[in-house]
Amino acid sequence: MPSNRARGFSHERDLVRKIWDQGLAVIRAPASGSKAKKTMYPDIVAIYKGKVVVIEAKTIKRAKTIYLEPYQVEKLLEFAKRASGESYIAVKVVGTGEWIFVSASKVERTHGGKYRLPKELLREGIKFDAFMSIIKGVRKLSEYTDT
Amino acid sequence: MPSNRARGFSHERDLVRKIWDQGLAVIRAPASGSKAKKTMYPDIVAIYKGKVVVIEAKTIKRAKTIYLEPYQVEKLLEFAKRASGESYIAVKVVGTGEWIFVSASKVERTHGGKYRLPKELLREGIKFDAFMSIIKGVRKLSEYTDT
Repeated sequence: MPSNRARGFSHERDLVRKIWDQGLAVIRAPASGSKAKKTMYPDIVAIYKGKVVVIEAKTIKRAKTIYLEPYQVEKLLEFAKRASGESYIAVKVVGTGEWIFVSASKVERTHGGKYRLPKELLREGIKFDAFMSIIKGVRKLSEYTDT
Repeated sequence: MPSNRARGFSHERDLVRKIWDQGLAVIRAPASGSKAKKTMYPDIVAIYKGKVVVIEAKTIKRAKTIYLEPYQVEKLLEFAKRASGESYIAVKVVGTGEWIFVSASKVERTHGGKYRLPKELLREGIKFDAFMSIIKGVRKLSEYTDT
């Protein structure tokens, strides 16, 4: 049976393919374990006509609060800043089969110095089709979220 | 002793680090052998404030005409088109220790259906510092090339 880690990569590859099939340019970072990724690469970078979106991908079995290591959030924000792009956490809840996208600006810092994405935010997250519409500029983010 | 392939990856990682150190966002594709790369990923994607540059990297021992497989050129052009970016072949001539950048638009199609980058073009290629200046918008490409 594949490990959780291997399953995570497989879901990530599927997401990359879905994004590519929508007409975007998209690239996945090398599998982690490589030092390079730990220091600077986001999991996925998608580009549509000069609009850049950087993504940290997470796979979970059922909806729950997600904790992220500082380097995972910081590399995402740093990469997005350099690229003048937007950053998102993409969460696949395996049970539902859906990807949910949450702006990285909504991630909260914990007392312990980690970051967390509260379970409630997953419910308010953006689904794949809406996410694509936002990136392609067909719809605005404000049509989907309150903030 | 490392294989040519391993040496190529090592040079590619060094290039990624040099580009990152210049303040750009940059991501390297997973090592080839993965099917995904064969179908769509360029070797390197560098982004500076929304300006996207996609790169196919080659390492050669001494200056010579380089032959590229159709998929290597086509994935580069397709990715650049989707991203509204520019595409380059980056060539490291190991003997000189330098990276030379040549616009992918200069690559020629051979009778056999492959693509080639004539040796003469390497001499006219752009060096690393000039390439960075062009991407950052400090200097124009026309200052470095005739066409």
